Amino acid sequence: METTLRGRGKPLTITANGPVVIIGEKINPTGRKRMQECLQSGDFDYLVNLALSQVAAGAQVLDINVGMPGMDEVALMRQVVRLVSDAVDVPLCLDSPNPEVLAAGLEVAPGKPLVNSVSGEEARLRSLLPLIKERGAAVVGLIMDDTGVPSTPEARLAVARKILERASALGISVEDVVIDPLAMAVGTDTRASTVTLRTIELVARELGTNVTMGASNVSFGMPERPTLNAAFMMLAIQAGLTCVITDPAKLAGTIRAADLLLGRDEYAGGYIKWFRRSQALTREAAEAASEASH
Amino acid sequence: METTLRGRGKPLTITANGPVVIIGEKINPTGRKRMQECLQSGDFDYLVNLALSQVAAGAQVLDINVGMPGMDEVALMRQVVRLVSDAVDVPLCLDSPNPEVLAAGLEVAPGKPLVNSVSGEEARLRSLLPLIKERGAAVVGLIMDDTGVPSTPEARLAVARKILERASALGISVEDVVIDPLAMAVGTDTRASTVTLRTIELVARELGTNVTMGASNVSFGMPERPTLNAAFMMLAIQAGLTCVITDPAKLAGTIRAADLLLGRDEYAGGYIKWFRRSQALTREAAEAASEASH
Repeated sequence: METTLRGRGKPLTITANGPVVIIGEKINPTGRKRMQECLQSGDFDYLVNLALSQVAAGAQVLDINVGMPGMDEVALMRQVVRLVSDAVDVPLCLDSPNPEVLAAGLEVAPGKPLVNSVSGEEARLRSLLPLIKERGAAVVGLIMDDTGVPSTPEARLAVARKILERASALGISVEDVVIDPLAMAVGTDTRASTVTLRTIELVARELGTNVTMGASNVSFGMPERPTLNAAFMMLAIQAGLTCVITDPAKLAGTIRAADLLLGRDEYAGGYIKWFRRSQALTREAAEAASEASH
Repeated sequence: METTLRGRGKPLTITANGPVVIIGEKINPTGRKRMQECLQSGDFDYLVNLALSQVAAGAQVLDINVGMPGMDEVALMRQVVRLVSDAVDVPLCLDSPNPEVLAAGLEVAPGKPLVNSVSGEEARLRSLLPLIKERGAAVVGLIMDDTGVPSTPEARLAVARKILERASALGISVEDVVIDPLAMAVGTDTRASTVTLRTIELVARELGTNVTMGASNVSFGMPERPTLNAAFMMLAIQAGLTCVITDPAKLAGTIRAADLLLGRDEYAGGYIKWFRRSQALTREAAEAASEASH
């Protein structure tokens, strides 16, 4: 199944046969003090540079989350989407639990963005799906409903099925729904990762949709989080993950390695391109540091 | 299926239900100048320290390879096995294509070592299997025969089956045969990794034996080899790899992360133990560096 997104540039297709798509996660103030200051002050240089540097490091979509208690998130979303889509031409992923904030982003985002996210919760299905249909966007369907996050892979599959059925009923193509199996913290329950991996396998096999995930929840509360995050991402890709919300500066190499090793990068072109780009970025950083010290 | 090895210490069991077993790869002169000098000079301090440091970093078995053109490898194997088994009590993996060298190692190795390796080649089956049976050792069965390395997963499975049948016919338990699916370089043929991963899945499912692999051949000739090696190891573990020949200082964390994420480390004890040990080793190294600079 193919999910096609568009920004101001050429369309981007997410599919199990192609390379894993990297959604840059860094435009998000949660736990990021510098980004919080940026959103509060209205001095957006830092944010625009982060959009540019994520794309340079290999992000193919940029997640935009402006969740700041006490701020006017509707206005902020509109402003940040405009700034980012002026700076880069990749598709955007509008990220908020608040339908009004998402609606504001959808008004100003160019092309066909991804909306993150609807879930199996009635209120979210009712408020968001008509918006998605009207705007012709794609949407992430989070596997939880009004009773919470189901504990078994089979029950999670049932929630995914319900989201797809509700989307279809409104005329949204199932190709435009990307399922998020919800990765919980393995430090709280060591079965959390196996349930998520099995859910990904079931969704990929039974529903055939694209599957996305944030790669860092799994390691919450554990030491050496980058080691766990990279390992989990590899296992999830093998299980059927087709796009991942992550920091491209840290994990693009691992993702391109997975493409190559799983037969999704026939002449190793994607891997070599990543390598050359990371060499160039390292060289630029060294030159900048050298100039700064003179 | 369980393969049990013994050194001078307590038995070690390799099984798909337990943690992935790490076989330390560094006692091997191939491409390692310092180790070559050590074997030539007969000054074995470096080698003994490497045995100790690999075990400290998480190796549960040590591979012993003394392959040096022009040297008396039979005498060298005997000597190195004695030195290493005096220094550490983990099981050993005797590594040579030469049956005489392996026989010398088997004479002096304590407990129940692993022999690396027999293959589907007639000469090796005939010369090695009786030795394995007589000594009560376990053996790695390399998936190649007199016609070479088969190109399809199904043909590789057939070679694995042949090795198991020949071992069984001599009274060697199939539990004592660990299959090596042969990882070829992905830089030469990008299908190399998918064929190997599929072979691992087939062997694990159809034969149920333990599966081992060296984790670094796959990246030969490519840039950023550690990124590719770590990625390939994760994919192989998910496919059914149960023990891996690698550098524990570099990859033990990734392997313990895989255990945790795949439900093979119920209370995260193995992962936390690795983390504490790696912290302690970092601290010791820093102290040693600080003392050296005073």
